[in-house]
Amino acid sequence: MKIAFFGVGHMGAPMAKNLIKAGYELNAYDINPQALEEMKKAGANTFTSIKENLQGADVVVTMVVQGKIVEQLYLNDGILKYANPKTLLIDCSTIDPTTSRKVAKEANAAGFEMIDAPVSGGTAGAAAGTLTFIVGGEDSVVEKARPILSKMGANIFHAGSSGAGQVAKICNNMLLAIHMIGTSEAINLGVENGLDPKVLSEIMKKSSGGNWSLEKYNPYPGVMDSVPSSRDYQGGFGNILMSKDLSLAQDAALSSKTSIPLGSLAHSLYAIHAKKFPHLDFSSIIQTIQGK
Amino acid sequence: MKIAFFGVGHMGAPMAKNLIKAGYELNAYDINPQALEEMKKAGANTFTSIKENLQGADVVVTMVVQGKIVEQLYLNDGILKYANPKTLLIDCSTIDPTTSRKVAKEANAAGFEMIDAPVSGGTAGAAAGTLTFIVGGEDSVVEKARPILSKMGANIFHAGSSGAGQVAKICNNMLLAIHMIGTSEAINLGVENGLDPKVLSEIMKKSSGGNWSLEKYNPYPGVMDSVPSSRDYQGGFGNILMSKDLSLAQDAALSSKTSIPLGSLAHSLYAIHAKKFPHLDFSSIIQTIQGK
Amino acid sequence: MKIAFFGVGHMGAPMAKNLIKAGYELNAYDINPQALEEMKKAGANTFTSIKENLQGADVVVTMVVQGKIVEQLYLNDGILKYANPKTLLIDCSTIDPTTSRKVAKEANAAGFEMIDAPVSGGTAGAAAGTLTFIVGGEDSVVEKARPILSKMGANIFHAGSSGAGQVAKICNNMLLAIHMIGTSEAINLGVENGLDPKVLSEIMKKSSGGNWSLEKYNPYPGVMDSVPSSRDYQGGFGNILMSKDLSLAQDAALSSKTSIPLGSLAHSLYAIHAKKFPHLDFSSIIQTIQGK
Amino acid sequence: MKIAFFGVGHMGAPMAKNLIKAGYELNAYDINPQALEEMKKAGANTFTSIKENLQGADVVVTMVVQGKIVEQLYLNDGILKYANPKTLLIDCSTIDPTTSRKVAKEANAAGFEMIDAPVSGGTAGAAAGTLTFIVGGEDSVVEKARPILSKMGANIFHAGSSGAGQVAKICNNMLLAIHMIGTSEAINLGVENGLDPKVLSEIMKKSSGGNWSLEKYNPYPGVMDSVPSSRDYQGGFGNILMSKDLSLAQDAALSSKTSIPLGSLAHSLYAIHAKKFPHLDFSSIIQTIQGK
Repeated sequence: MKIAFFGVGHMGAPMAKNLIKAGYELNAYDINPQALEEMKKAGANTFTSIKENLQGADVVVTMVVQGKIVEQLYLNDGILKYANPKTLLIDCSTIDPTTSRKVAKEANAAGFEMIDAPVSGGTAGAAAGTLTFIVGGEDSVVEKARPILSKMGANIFHAGSSGAGQVAKICNNMLLAIHMIGTSEAINLGVENGLDPKVLSEIMKKSSGGNWSLEKYNPYPGVMDSVPSSRDYQGGFGNILMSKDLSLAQDAALSSKTSIPLGSLAHSLYAIHAKKFPHLDFSSIIQTIQGK
Repeated sequence: MKIAFFGVGHMGAPMAKNLIKAGYELNAYDINPQALEEMKKAGANTFTSIKENLQGADVVVTMVVQGKIVEQLYLNDGILKYANPKTLLIDCSTIDPTTSRKVAKEANAAGFEMIDAPVSGGTAGAAAGTLTFIVGGEDSVVEKARPILSKMGANIFHAGSSGAGQVAKICNNMLLAIHMIGTSEAINLGVENGLDPKVLSEIMKKSSGGNWSLEKYNPYPGVMDSVPSSRDYQGGFGNILMSKDLSLAQDAALSSKTSIPLGSLAHSLYAIHAKKFPHLDFSSIIQTIQGK
Repeated sequence: MKIAFFGVGHMGAPMAKNLIKAGYELNAYDINPQALEEMKKAGANTFTSIKENLQGADVVVTMVVQGKIVEQLYLNDGILKYANPKTLLIDCSTIDPTTSRKVAKEANAAGFEMIDAPVSGGTAGAAAGTLTFIVGGEDSVVEKARPILSKMGANIFHAGSSGAGQVAKICNNMLLAIHMIGTSEAINLGVENGLDPKVLSEIMKKSSGGNWSLEKYNPYPGVMDSVPSSRDYQGGFGNILMSKDLSLAQDAALSSKTSIPLGSLAHSLYAIHAKKFPHLDFSSIIQTIQGK
Repeated sequence: MKIAFFGVGHMGAPMAKNLIKAGYELNAYDINPQALEEMKKAGANTFTSIKENLQGADVVVTMVVQGKIVEQLYLNDGILKYANPKTLLIDCSTIDPTTSRKVAKEANAAGFEMIDAPVSGGTAGAAAGTLTFIVGGEDSVVEKARPILSKMGANIFHAGSSGAGQVAKICNNMLLAIHMIGTSEAINLGVENGLDPKVLSEIMKKSSGGNWSLEKYNPYPGVMDSVPSSRDYQGGFGNILMSKDLSLAQDAALSSKTSIPLGSLAHSLYAIHAKKFPHLDFSSIIQTIQGK
C-alpha cells in the first residue's frame, strides 16, 4: 500500500516517518527542499509535483497550515484532478470547517471518499505516534482510514459527518484556551492573596475547579515539573497556534451567528499576547494576566 | 463535648443535625424561630441570645451568608465577649477574606483559636455529610477542628493561614464559573455547527478541553442524566450564589490589585443571568449564552 | 440621465424616490413584486431581469443586505456582463470589505469605474434625503458620483480607496456600539448609586465622558425626548442591524489579525440581545445590562 | 476668610496657590516637608499638626489620594474633633462613595456642613484654575462652597446629595476609559485595513462614533497635535490613575450589585497596561491593544 503525503513540515514529517516505520511505501511532497531532503533520508520517495507525488498512491494524507493551501492542493490543478478516484483522501490540517466541507464536497462530486482528521498532541505527539485525531466523515470511510491513522496516533475520535472533525477540534481548543486563562487567573489571584500556588492547585484539582490545564499543564512556574511553565515556556504549543485556533473558533461563531463571549475575550487576549511572544508555549498567557 | 452552632438555615441545619447524630450536644442560635423549632425537634437546645447559646460550649460553629453578619456575631456584644477563651471557633461562612482575617485577628487578640472553613457541596452535601471544607488557620488548630469537620464533610483541605480557606474557595469557584461558561460556549458552538452535543462532550472530556463542568455537570440538556440541565435546571447551585462568589472574587482582585479578565466577564454574565433566574442552577448560564 | 437601481426595499425605495424627485429617469429591479409595484407608482420603470434593468442606464446604484447578493448582482450573469462599460457603478450596501474590494476589482478589470458608498442614517434619513455616505474609491470617480449621492444624502465622506467606505463605516459603528453600551453602563451605575439619570447625563455630556450616544440618543428612558428610549425602543436602528455590523467588524478584525477586545464583547452582548429583541432600537441594550 | 488646606501634593499645591492668589489666607498641612516648604514660599502658613492647621479656619479643603486617608484626616483624632463646627468642609479627593458618605454623615452628626467635590482636569487644570468640580451635598452648602471652588476651577456641577460627586465622577471616568479603548480599537482596525488614521478620525468625529477621546484626545500618534499621543504619551492623565478610577467604578458596581461588562473589561485592560506603563498617559492603552 502506498501513501502520498503532502506537507512534511514540523508536524507532517514525524507523522510521515511513522507511516514509513509501519511499513507503508511513502511519497512526500513539499515546497521546502530541505523538508524533502530529510524525508528522503527517512526512506520516502520525494516529489515537487502534485501529480507525480500521486503516482501509485492508494491513500493521500495532507498536513498543511491554512485552508487556502488545502484548496490549492486539492482543487483546480490538484489532487482531485490527478488522483485515481479510488484513492482515500485524509486531510489532517486544522482549518475552517467551511473550507473543509467545500473541499470534501468537491471530492465526493469527483468520486472520492474523504475525511477531515485534524490532530492534537503537538510535535512531541507526532514523533511519538500518540496524536489524537478528531475525524469528520462517513462511518465507512473513517473505518477505512483507521488503520492508517492508528500508525500515527493513539486516539481516534469520530465527531460526525464531513467537517465535524474541524468543528470539534476548534471547540475543544477554545475550551482549552478558556480554562488555561481561567486557571492562570485563579492561581494568580490566590498567590496575590497569600496562597501557595502548589497548595491551591492541589485543592482546585480535587474540587470543582478541576480541568486539564490545572491537572496536566499548570501555567504557574514551579508547581509542576516537565511542563513548559517550568522551563520558561519553551517548547509546547505556541501562542501563535492557539491564537490561530481561536480565530477559527471566532470565524465558526460568526458564520453560525453563535455568541462566544469568553471565547472572544480569550481570542483577544491571545492575539495581544501572541504578538509579543509568538513562539512561547500558550501557558505563558499567565504573564500577560500578570501585566508582565 | 458541646457545640454552639450559630445559623441553622438551609446549609447550617443539616450540618448541625449531622453533629447531633455524631453524638455531640448542640446549642442552636438563629433569628428565625422556625429554624430553631426544627432544630429543637432534632434534639438541639435552642436560644435566641448569643450569650446563652454559648453556655458550656467547647466549640463554636458559625454558618451565615454575609461578612457583616459574621462581624455582628463575633465582635462587639458577641461571641468574643461571651465565650470561654478555650472555645475553638470555626466559621463555615463563605465571606470576603478581609473580614475573615479581621475577625480571626480579633479572636486571637482575645485569646481564642479560630479557623475559616467555608464549604462546597451544597445542601445535598450538607445533608449527606459529604461537604468539602477548605480551611484557613494554624496547623494545630486545623487538627483540633478536624474531628468535628469530619462529621459534616468528606474532604478537608488546608489552604494556608487565616483567611486562606476563603481565598481558595473563591479562586476555585471563579475557575468553576469560567469553565462552566466556556463549556457552555463550546458545546453550543459545536451544536450550531452541526455536531451532536453528546459526541462532542465525549471527545472533549477525553481531550485537552476536559474539566469538571464537562465531566460531572454538563450544562447541555439531555447529555447527562441526573444533573440540573436534565431537569430544567432545578436544584443544584443557584445562580445567585455563583454571582455572590464571583463578586467575592472581584472584591479580592480589587483589594489585591490583581487582574482577572475572564473572571470579571464571568461575573458580569452571571450578574445579568442571576437577575432573571436567581434560583435556577448555575449551569443554566448556557441559556443566556444562547440568547434565550 | 438614467439610473438603474437594484434593491428597492426599506432603505432602497426612499433613496430611489429621492432620485426620481431630483429629476432622474429611474429603472428599478427587485425580487419582491410589491416593492416594484410601489416604485412603479412613484414613477419608476420596473424590471425583474438584471439585463433589462440596465437598459440605457448611465449609473447603477445597488442597495442590498449581504455581500453574497452583491456578488450575485455584479458577477457571473450580472451587471458586469450586461452593463455598458461607461456606466458608473455605486454600491450602497453595507458588506464586508473583502467582498467589496473583490467586486470592485472585477469591475475595474471589466473596464468599469466603481465605488462603495455605504450609508448611515436609517430609513428616516433615507426618506428625508439626509443620509451620510462613507465612500471608497478613486477621487475622480467619487467626484462623478457626488451629484447623485447628494440627492440622497446630506454628508459625503471620502474614506480612501476601494473598500475604504466599508471599513470606515464598520469602524464607526463598532465605536458607536461600544459607547452606547458604555453610556448605558455608566448611567445605570449612577442610578443604582442614587443619581438622577438626567443630572448625570448632563454632567457627563459636558465632561470627558461626552459621546454621540449620550448627546443625541440617550438610552435611559425619560432623559431625552424624541429618541427611541422614550418610546419603548420602537423605531430607530434595530439590534439585528447593529449585531450584523459588529459581525462585519469582527470579520475585518479576524482577516487583518487585529485585536478588538471591547468590540468583541460588544458583539457578544448585541448578539445575545438581538436574539431576544431583534427589532427594538439598539439603545435597548441597556435592558440586557440591567438583567431585564 | 481663612482656608485650612490638607494635602498639598501634585494636585493640591496648585489648587491651594490659586486660593492664595485669590486673596484667601491659607494654612497648609501635609506629611511631606518639601511640599510644605513649597507652600511656605507661596505665602501659606504651614503646619504638621491637624489641630494647628485648623486654627482660625472658616473653610477646610482636603485633597488626598485614598479613602483611608480621608478617614484618618476627618475621623478620630482629626478634623471633626478639632474644627469649629461652623467650618465648611470640602473634600476634593476622588474616593469611593461609601467612605465619602460615611465621613459626611459623621460630619453632619458633629454639626458640620460638608460636600464631596472631586475634580477632573489634571495638574494642568489645577495650575490654570480650570478644573471641573463634580459636587455632592445639600444645595445650600454647595452654594456656600461655590465662591471658593470657582477660584480653583472653571466648571462646577452639582450631581446630587452627599457622595453624588464621587459617583458621578466615577461614572464619567469609566465611560471615558471605555470610549478611549473603543476609539483606539476603531482607529487601529481601520489602519490595519488600509485607512489613514486622520481621515478615519475625521469621519467618525462627524458621525455617530463621535466622542471626547476622538475629538479632544486622539490616541493614535500623529493625528492630533498637542495631545499625549503626539509626545510619546508623556504628561496627561496617568494609566495608574485611570486604573484607580476604574477600580472605584468596579467597587461601586459590586456594592450596588450592578453589572458593568465593558467597564470591567476596561478595568482589566488598564490594570494590565498600568503595570507596564504606570505613568504614561491613559491614551497609551492603544499600545496594549496593538500587542506592543
